[in-house]
Amino acid sequence: MSGSRQLKLAARPVGDIKDTDFELVEVPVPSPGEGEFVVEVSHISLDPAMRGWMNKGRSYVPPVEIGEVMRALTIGRVIASRHDGFAEGDLVQGTFGVCEHAVSDGAGVHKLPDDGGGVPLPAYLGALGMTGLTAYFGLLDVGKLEDGNTVLVSGAAGAVGTAVGQIARIKGAARVVGVAGGAEKCRLLVDELGFDGAVDYKAGNLMGDLRSATPDYVDVFFDNVGGEILDLGLTRIACGARIVICGAVSQYNNTAPMQGPSNYMSLLVSRASMTGFVVFDYAKRYGEAIAEMAGWLAAGKLRNVEDTVQGDLADFPETLRKMFRGENTGKLVLELAH
Amino acid sequence: MSGSRQLKLAARPVGDIKDTDFELVEVPVPSPGEGEFVVEVSHISLDPAMRGWMNKGRSYVPPVEIGEVMRALTIGRVIASRHDGFAEGDLVQGTFGVCEHAVSDGAGVHKLPDDGGGVPLPAYLGALGMTGLTAYFGLLDVGKLEDGNTVLVSGAAGAVGTAVGQIARIKGAARVVGVAGGAEKCRLLVDELGFDGAVDYKAGNLMGDLRSATPDYVDVFFDNVGGEILDLGLTRIACGARIVICGAVSQYNNTAPMQGPSNYMSLLVSRASMTGFVVFDYAKRYGEAIAEMAGWLAAGKLRNVEDTVQGDLADFPETLRKMFRGENTGKLVLELAH
Repeated sequence: MSGSRQLKLAARPVGDIKDTDFELVEVPVPSPGEGEFVVEVSHISLDPAMRGWMNKGRSYVPPVEIGEVMRALTIGRVIASRHDGFAEGDLVQGTFGVCEHAVSDGAGVHKLPDDGGGVPLPAYLGALGMTGLTAYFGLLDVGKLEDGNTVLVSGAAGAVGTAVGQIARIKGAARVVGVAGGAEKCRLLVDELGFDGAVDYKAGNLMGDLRSATPDYVDVFFDNVGGEILDLGLTRIACGARIVICGAVSQYNNTAPMQGPSNYMSLLVSRASMTGFVVFDYAKRYGEAIAEMAGWLAAGKLRNVEDTVQGDLADFPETLRKMFRGENTGKLVLELAH
Repeated sequence: MSGSRQLKLAARPVGDIKDTDFELVEVPVPSPGEGEFVVEVSHISLDPAMRGWMNKGRSYVPPVEIGEVMRALTIGRVIASRHDGFAEGDLVQGTFGVCEHAVSDGAGVHKLPDDGGGVPLPAYLGALGMTGLTAYFGLLDVGKLEDGNTVLVSGAAGAVGTAVGQIARIKGAARVVGVAGGAEKCRLLVDELGFDGAVDYKAGNLMGDLRSATPDYVDVFFDNVGGEILDLGLTRIACGARIVICGAVSQYNNTAPMQGPSNYMSLLVSRASMTGFVVFDYAKRYGEAIAEMAGWLAAGKLRNVEDTVQGDLADFPETLRKMFRGENTGKLVLELAH
């Protein structure tokens, strides 16, 4: 192999992401320094949070700088090592970025079982990755799910949403309702993932359908999308409800200010709370969560809904746009054909 | 006395409250039935929450119905009694409504010391009433104030706001900042009530002034007003901040939908929560709170900021409008000249 490609941030997007917001560059395949190893990246996770990383300003992580390789969670294999803890051939997971090869000193890198442990590799970016951890801690720790609760999740057919609904089911929710775009996604939620109800926000009767789907109101509302769905969901909360703010994917490409939830005073009427979180804060507890979710996955109780695109780095911008258009179902991963 | 006047709700207000939303009627002075007593009302509390009580729809209390006496917290004196627990001459506090006389069976009625206990009567509707309780439980229980915190309070020169700032000071806040309308209110907060800073939202530089006033960000944001102040305050919250939603007085007279906080995603960035509450839920703990606040009042640590209007029932609508125009300072009370 003569060269290695990397996708760098070329411009901060205004509104929708454009191809020209990135620059594809070719560099020599790196060599490891003392205490380092080189990873050949095979799977790149696509996450709504990426849109925020591309913006300037105060956030929970520093922004990706112009000229830096675009940040991404990835899976790859070690192809050269001068690090005692990692050997050539090791399968690893880390934030290597949107690139074909990366050099690492091992910080924040986790080894995966060599054969994937019987689990398809994309699951390590989905249900057994940051996505699953986000669903797990958001629902159980921030949302304080209790037995018998009604759970509403928006972006329900997305990576985090499919996990939230299934975990709610496993953990004793009485009723799980998802909001998703399109009849096929709604069918998947109910027929294949055990949701009790699904509301198609594209069907033209969002408020009425939400009302019918939540006759006893909602105890935990896990919101991934913001905008109108958050706003209308707020009218359906039960006394003492917990609203978990995980994301606002409907709003990330706005050039106008975000739409704030005009029904937020239902927090007062319902003595409810709306809480934001960042999964990184739970790093010390990742182990327990992954162990529990791996058990569910092995037992067939939890399904990693996978949406893998085969391609190369040049396909990254369009794959990311596909996510913001709501065209993925479950965990969107770009698998690199080396 | 030949008759007794009552102010009834005549119409649900659209936007600002109009005189014609009420009807002043005269009825005979009531007589107590067995187990009842009659109160002559002397002081009527005016509260932003009243605007919500006049609206239809699901809320934390049933709406006042058209034709019903307008709901209000009041102080009065028992003028006739056939109730074992209440005697003629007793000074009492209860939700007797906007009227000159009310019949009660004693439910929800509290006796006050005959001479007011050395405290001016309006204080029992202010710092020692629902207003003080709202500040106390909102700040300490919902806002989880901790030693060394920075506290931001909006509507700071209002009844609840003046109490919140002073309680924060007493309970160990490192920095207390109020947002109020006008230089005179801001002066009062800093010079007389011990606030560390005050931001005049009418001065034309709200964002810049908020930023300067909160160099170390805000741990507890007690919001009484909603709208732009809530929205900009959200950009100043510290990691783990608690935002207490007590009211949204800037929005109650809107005919358009409420303005939602477009910066609500700072809840995620700052791992913060926004929680609504209703003081009635703390009824079992009113005693401890009142005892503590009475001690502070007696010790001169807490001041009941009083704005008493002398008048009669016909003055109620205009007095209420005065509050929504932000023209009161501290607790607004209508004292009836009998």
